[in-house]
Amino acid sequence: MTDTALAPEIETVVAAAAGAAPAFAATAPRDRARAIVAVADALDEAGPRLVEIARRETGLTEARLSGEVARTSVQLRLFADALVDGGYLDARIDHADPDFVLGPRPDIRRTHLPLGPVINFSASNFPFAFSVLGGDSAAVLAAGCPLIVKAHSGHPELSDATAEVAVAALRSSGMPEGVLHVIHGQEAGVAVLEDPRIAAGAFTGSIRVGRLLADIAAARPAPIPFYGELGSVNPVFVTADAIAERADEIAAGYLTSVSGSAGQLCTKPGFVFIPSGSALPDAVRAAGPGLPEHRLLGPRIARSFAERRDAILGTAGVRPVIDGSIRFDSEGQGWATPTVVSVALDDFRAGRRELLEEAFGPLSILVEIPEGADPAALVPEFFEGNLTGTLHLSGPEAGGETANAAALRALVDALGRQVGRVLFNGWPTGVAVTPAQQHGGPWPATTNDSSTSVGTAAIARFLRPVAFQNAPAAFLPLALRDDNPLDVPRSIAPAGESGDWGARFSEPVVR
Amino acid sequence: MTDTALAPEIETVVAAAAGAAPAFAATAPRDRARAIVAVADALDEAGPRLVEIARRETGLTEARLSGEVARTSVQLRLFADALVDGGYLDARIDHADPDFVLGPRPDIRRTHLPLGPVINFSASNFPFAFSVLGGDSAAVLAAGCPLIVKAHSGHPELSDATAEVAVAALRSSGMPEGVLHVIHGQEAGVAVLEDPRIAAGAFTGSIRVGRLLADIAAARPAPIPFYGELGSVNPVFVTADAIAERADEIAAGYLTSVSGSAGQLCTKPGFVFIPSGSALPDAVRAAGPGLPEHRLLGPRIARSFAERRDAILGTAGVRPVIDGSIRFDSEGQGWATPTVVSVALDDFRAGRRELLEEAFGPLSILVEIPEGADPAALVPEFFEGNLTGTLHLSGPEAGGETANAAALRALVDALGRQVGRVLFNGWPTGVAVTPAQQHGGPWPATTNDSSTSVGTAAIARFLRPVAFQNAPAAFLPLALRDDNPLDVPRSIAPAGESGDWGARFSEPVVR
Repeated sequence: MTDTALAPEIETVVAAAAGAAPAFAATAPRDRARAIVAVADALDEAGPRLVEIARRETGLTEARLSGEVARTSVQLRLFADALVDGGYLDARIDHADPDFVLGPRPDIRRTHLPLGPVINFSASNFPFAFSVLGGDSAAVLAAGCPLIVKAHSGHPELSDATAEVAVAALRSSGMPEGVLHVIHGQEAGVAVLEDPRIAAGAFTGSIRVGRLLADIAAARPAPIPFYGELGSVNPVFVTADAIAERADEIAAGYLTSVSGSAGQLCTKPGFVFIPSGSALPDAVRAAGPGLPEHRLLGPRIARSFAERRDAILGTAGVRPVIDGSIRFDSEGQGWATPTVVSVALDDFRAGRRELLEEAFGPLSILVEIPEGADPAALVPEFFEGNLTGTLHLSGPEAGGETANAAALRALVDALGRQVGRVLFNGWPTGVAVTPAQQHGGPWPATTNDSSTSVGTAAIARFLRPVAFQNAPAAFLPLALRDDNPLDVPRSIAPAGESGDWGARFSEPVVR
Repeated sequence: MTDTALAPEIETVVAAAAGAAPAFAATAPRDRARAIVAVADALDEAGPRLVEIARRETGLTEARLSGEVARTSVQLRLFADALVDGGYLDARIDHADPDFVLGPRPDIRRTHLPLGPVINFSASNFPFAFSVLGGDSAAVLAAGCPLIVKAHSGHPELSDATAEVAVAALRSSGMPEGVLHVIHGQEAGVAVLEDPRIAAGAFTGSIRVGRLLADIAAARPAPIPFYGELGSVNPVFVTADAIAERADEIAAGYLTSVSGSAGQLCTKPGFVFIPSGSALPDAVRAAGPGLPEHRLLGPRIARSFAERRDAILGTAGVRPVIDGSIRFDSEGQGWATPTVVSVALDDFRAGRRELLEEAFGPLSILVEIPEGADPAALVPEFFEGNLTGTLHLSGPEAGGETANAAALRALVDALGRQVGRVLFNGWPTGVAVTPAQQHGGPWPATTNDSSTSVGTAAIARFLRPVAFQNAPAAFLPLALRDDNPLDVPRSIAPAGESGDWGARFSEPVVR
């Protein structure tokens, strides 16, 4: 079936992953959950050693990296919980109905089965949480799909060391051989993505590379799903009343969010819309001094940030609020302190070509909007899809009864149409890993907005629905058997009701 | 935003659909349910008049078309039920947790919101059930997305008449103007699919056209989801014991399935694998006489079927079981009786280039497999993705305790990896519209295997997940408010549990 021969070591990986797929798919969810917990335990145990490698390779601080290991470990454990819960299977049982309004209806039962081998292109900015054992990897393994991680070139040694820890834990938990691999190099990654044995792709990174890979996945002889999480500038709106109520608190939260991880987060608030003449720029300026200098992830990212920063500072009407800095050391690494600028709406509009593109690093833009401008209209005017949109309200505004309530609701609706997560009185960085989390959004936030890349709902990416019609019990997946041995929640449509609206399924279904 | 100007009448349609999107998205699910029931009522009332037009345009029989109207109406009503049930929202609430293992966790709540305007390319072979008010259309409207139907050129008058009925019912139900449109012509359909205001596409038809449209959707500056349901040949396996038990019953069911709707169904059983030397071919031959002649849907389909039939009959080793016929009348319409052939596995393998392609019409192939051949291995050897796969078993085999039980389970697993629906002791035609139905499958059965095109689960195609973080009640979607005014099922993760596996979410969640 393969058109182009793979390099021998890549062929070995793909063949092993494809060979392991049926056995891995057949493992019981509870056994996969135990194996994933074993991986989390092993990651925790190896944490200090891995953090040391990561520190050297990425320039991120020990505190940030140790926190990321903890987050990655908890994330794995939450996927184990999701497996045991079983809600992810969306199990549905329609009992046979000889009296169905359209004629006798067979017994139909539906669950979700693993897609098969998946390639996950990992990110530079989270060497644990979006890398070898990151969110997409946890989702792939939880789904029962063999995983091939294309390591990010920013932390190759860490990627291999993490994989070694994980493979040992999977093996000792009795999982089939060949369910986790790391490969290196963009060419190898593309070759794997094109291989007919691969069933899906995932990616976290730039719009340019994400689009390239999504196009490759879509152009295959047999197209496959591709989940790319790409760029986002995360617009924030702050009302006059919120600023009057707590300017200093908002300024402090804003700077923490812009400067954390040296601003190299896909949820960094890139644009904050505030009323003209408000006190927020002064509050930000006052909170600015003493922000520490951080190394950026690598020379390429640093150079790109410096260029974007220069372009923004050179745009007509842009005024510095916090000057910030970037310098390069003898090894080409860039070191930066945060930059915040302000610009009036008219100048923002005139300079949109320079200003709107994501600046990946510690920089953010305050946009001052004149009285009478409709914030809801600004969302589609300036933005495509984004991971997040945020609104800061005063206490009375949060009650929804102020004079501007309708305008605020229209703004929330506008954000809801274009982002994956709408926040109130908070900052978008620091994405909680929970069942309800949604880390996604319309293009170009993602290449596929049907699911999330953070939170346990991500498991849906790597599953496909399959129905069984009139299947004898001996041939039904466990989740669909009458005695429900996995104890999973199920939607059951009983027989013997009419097909009229208001009767059929109008009773609460069994869940 | 539009690069290319649309023809004025198409621009009017797209602008109206885009303009209606926010208001339609804001309608309450129960109000949309009532409107969809009103559409179903109107369809039932207009049924006889519409069937008359359809009969003339498609050549399908009055009985078949009247049944299809009933099915289409019930399908709409089932989507109304799904709206009232609310399970489709997959509402999740994670309460804030100040003691979360990774630090304080905000309140996060997730539901699904409509994508926006959708274009649905309708099918030729189901002028009601996969056309203007068909399954995808019902799902689009239920989701709260404005709908533009590209009418199939095989029934343009019916498409306009159906739309008129639906628009009147939507209007009188208080839905916003502009939520349903019909357009004609492939060029217009492509222009709409390329328009930046369109959020998703759906299609039912050939692999060639489906792939063309999927590629267009993927290549847009902002790619959008595209759900194409394409070709399928629906392999069937029959065991020796099943034939010994009930050869005549199997033969009769087979011929009904192959000849219904003149074989022009995406679920027609194209290949039936049987043991060499079994009694089934004789039983099929005996059941054959007297099968009626039917007109095919149109001259192009008929010519294509005649060509495929000639190619199959001319392939080495192919022997007629039921001869069948095809003739053309003076208007170029083709009239056919069913053709069934048999071929030994070796000849099937040698002739696969001619034999494997779908023959859209009343023709099916019996493949005789020698003792010792592994049926599970034949699935990936001969087939890509399919809508269905079927297994006929004897009573004792269904119990799962016979000597061949492991081989049968391996066959079911192999089918489960490549099809959307696995059937037992039945035939794949006649797809029940139920919550658990899955009408899909890996490429080339569909261009996107993450959902279904029949059954109420199809609503998920036209929704996207959105999370709300720390949202005041006044700004939360109704499905996520504490008092649950829509009474929808929800998964709730309570605060105050540890993040360890085995504790968090290991209790049954509230649903």
